[in-house]
Amino acid sequence: MEKVPAKVRAILLADDPETFVTRRISEVNLEFGGMRGDRHFGVTSKADSRQPMYPRGTEILNRRQITIVSEEELARIADELEVESVMPEWLGANLLVKGFPDLTKLTMGSRILFPSGAGLICMGENQPCTLPGDVLQKHYEDHEKLAFRFVRAGYKRRGIVCAVERPGIIHEGDEVQILVNDFTNPMQ
Amino acid sequence: MEKVPAKVRAILLADDPETFVTRRISEVNLEFGGMRGDRHFGVTSKADSRQPMYPRGTEILNRRQITIVSEEELARIADELEVESVMPEWLGANLLVKGFPDLTKLTMGSRILFPSGAGLICMGENQPCTLPGDVLQKHYEDHEKLAFRFVRAGYKRRGIVCAVERPGIIHEGDEVQILVNDFTNPMQ
Repeated sequence: MEKVPAKVRAILLADDPETFVTRRISEVNLEFGGMRGDRHFGVTSKADSRQPMYPRGTEILNRRQITIVSEEELARIADELEVESVMPEWLGANLLVKGFPDLTKLTMGSRILFPSGAGLICMGENQPCTLPGDVLQKHYEDHEKLAFRFVRAGYKRRGIVCAVERPGIIHEGDEVQILVNDFTNPMQ
Repeated sequence: MEKVPAKVRAILLADDPETFVTRRISEVNLEFGGMRGDRHFGVTSKADSRQPMYPRGTEILNRRQITIVSEEELARIADELEVESVMPEWLGANLLVKGFPDLTKLTMGSRILFPSGAGLICMGENQPCTLPGDVLQKHYEDHEKLAFRFVRAGYKRRGIVCAVERPGIIHEGDEVQILVNDFTNPMQ
């Protein structure tokens, strides 16, 4: 099992009911269910268009508590779109990390362990939606068709979703350990 | 996304505190946390030797609520051990299914959907331990070193662990749909 160090560059919360856009906070107590006050908080959540196998609104297990993006992947998206930067806020991300460039490829079942002992478990790739592209377009009005082009530029670079496996406090600047799950000899 | 039909051949509960061995029941109401009364029931559980990244006894998210084995893989284990049969009870399994022969290879994030609308989500391969081998040895006393040989015969045939994604009742004989998660275009 590979172990990779990485750094938490930002912690972000979506606590404005009007938008999925997140805002930076310096620390947060991860609970079972995620970050209290965040729009994705909950041990369970309502099925939506992402889970077409269940009727819309059904209460299901919430595997999308925390979304994480990598600085390296956001830089690649920005390069491709020829914009100065793509901010994690605009994607509604909860964590921005640096040091694991291909974060979106992180295997399901991988762990992210924090200095406090808190732990997240990777529940897979976060598939792109079009909403962040609209936010991006507003920030760069002179760039054409940014909302449309974002979907392609963001493909396989939109990071991962996680569930809280072990509660605990986390801080901006935390050095985390990423335990990469190897499907041929999987962690349990 | 591939969709494969399969059949629930048995439902089993581990409700005897003295043993992990399960007993057959005809139906059960799946709740968030699994099967009430089962030793693995709970939305959270205690970290044990399977989760060495956390101190033993720490409360963590329970991804091992329901264990499932396939009739086809148990038959292959029995063949290799030259015994008449390997029963799901002896492995402490909660469900026995038929129709998805390589169940142990089912990818994380795959869904198992029941006629009632209940759904399980695959949390990965169940790695073998030595305990079921001891049970097997007791049932076939004239076979030598069965406990030892079971570990090898059971390698990559021990089935999967799941969490309840959507509660609901399930019955022996249920025809289920297995939605196979494809990591190149993952379900959400």
